[in-house]
Amino acid sequence: VDKINEIAIIGAGNVASNLAVRLHETGANVNQIYSPNLIRSKALAELVNAKAIASFDEIAAATELIIIAIPDDKLASISTQLPKQINCVHTSGSVQFNVLANETRKYGSFYPLQTLTSSQISLDTEIPILLETSHNDFGLQLKELAERFSPSVEFMDSERRKKLHVAAVIVNNFTNHLYSEAQQYCENNELSFDLLKPLILETALKVQNNIPGEVQTGPAKRNDQLVIKDHLKILSDQEELKELYERFTKLIINTQASK
Amino acid sequence: VDKINEIAIIGAGNVASNLAVRLHETGANVNQIYSPNLIRSKALAELVNAKAIASFDEIAAATELIIIAIPDDKLASISTQLPKQINCVHTSGSVQFNVLANETRKYGSFYPLQTLTSSQISLDTEIPILLETSHNDFGLQLKELAERFSPSVEFMDSERRKKLHVAAVIVNNFTNHLYSEAQQYCENNELSFDLLKPLILETALKVQNNIPGEVQTGPAKRNDQLVIKDHLKILSDQEELKELYERFTKLIINTQASK
Repeated sequence: VDKINEIAIIGAGNVASNLAVRLHETGANVNQIYSPNLIRSKALAELVNAKAIASFDEIAAATELIIIAIPDDKLASISTQLPKQINCVHTSGSVQFNVLANETRKYGSFYPLQTLTSSQISLDTEIPILLETSHNDFGLQLKELAERFSPSVEFMDSERRKKLHVAAVIVNNFTNHLYSEAQQYCENNELSFDLLKPLILETALKVQNNIPGEVQTGPAKRNDQLVIKDHLKILSDQEELKELYERFTKLIINTQASK
Repeated sequence: VDKINEIAIIGAGNVASNLAVRLHETGANVNQIYSPNLIRSKALAELVNAKAIASFDEIAAATELIIIAIPDDKLASISTQLPKQINCVHTSGSVQFNVLANETRKYGSFYPLQTLTSSQISLDTEIPILLETSHNDFGLQLKELAERFSPSVEFMDSERRKKLHVAAVIVNNFTNHLYSEAQQYCENNELSFDLLKPLILETALKVQNNIPGEVQTGPAKRNDQLVIKDHLKILSDQEELKELYERFTKLIINTQASK
């Protein structure tokens, strides 16, 4: 495989920052960072020894790959503004890879299936990378690049990536909302949310090696109506949370019954 | 504090097994294990160098503490069958501590706020312990005992413990059900659930040091209606999951709007 080493990044947000740092750490040359927000691009550029650029015209001709990590709705327009010959990928879970298609470049998607925060970049975080490309040789180059920092790299077409993105929303965004509901509830009741943190972590650790449905516990799983009624009484003045409690209790009871 | 060292355990399930092993590891003498299921009590007894007993009459007079880790609805009846003079605690999140009251013993609750599995006992798992007791001196003894294996030990009355248990159900049982829904969805769509495991772990790690509402991400948080509509279309033939998606999307959008 012809290794990719000269990289430019469009964007300086959460995904751009994490990929820039991880690639930089593997020894790749992240040479240029573009963002309409020059303060952000300069901060990220400094972190990975790159140059912040303020215009697409400044993208170096020697660039082997442009990674575009910007909001989904801006991809189509950016694609036409970038140098036509340089190969590029976007990092979106939802957008078709051929939004980047033109007559000369090779293109693809390079989707990190992870929740990434620019203020908390950890080299320990495992970032699965899902690839889709216009050309097989380009795909192999991207795979080699991704495998430098990720143990989990797969090819996946846009339709399947989109489906997987739905599952990611469920286990990440919806789960985080449950955490948020619990945190608000603790605050309202002057209980320490910190006491729940080991439980949150253990719940996530447990499904690393088990099928979630097989390690379910709790009053709904036992169909313990005494405890359930008691809990609903506690939640009686919190409509939203009470409704969530009823909904999940029913879902868990039904799941257990259908086994 | 007069340290507790001679312990008997009633029960041989998930909570009993984890507490027995953790206490044994701290050097406490877990001397006797009772369970109506003698195979289980023998297995656990072997693990902690104790004796499995088949009757409450066999509980040694030198026992300083009986830990009762059995289903909630059996606590009241077991309480009257145990030796009247020996101090005891139950491990329930939902039951009042005075279910164990009589005229002679000191009693309390010793509630591990964690999801515990007997087949996967890890000494690394942090187990917050919530205490409530009839006598202050007994409370201090229990605190000393719990602190041997837990960095997080607090006194909490039954009402507040019950309230915290509701929050525990939300972040543990309901979250696990979301994992389970996602795993089923992946299976139905021939997607690898393994790809989601780093995301699940990172989501739980992120709230160890952040307020959940402040690290929310995703299409609902951005109110990205294009992606949301796309996802609902993908879920159109899966009524249950579609309803969950709509419900959480609405909750997250409302939470963001109320900030």
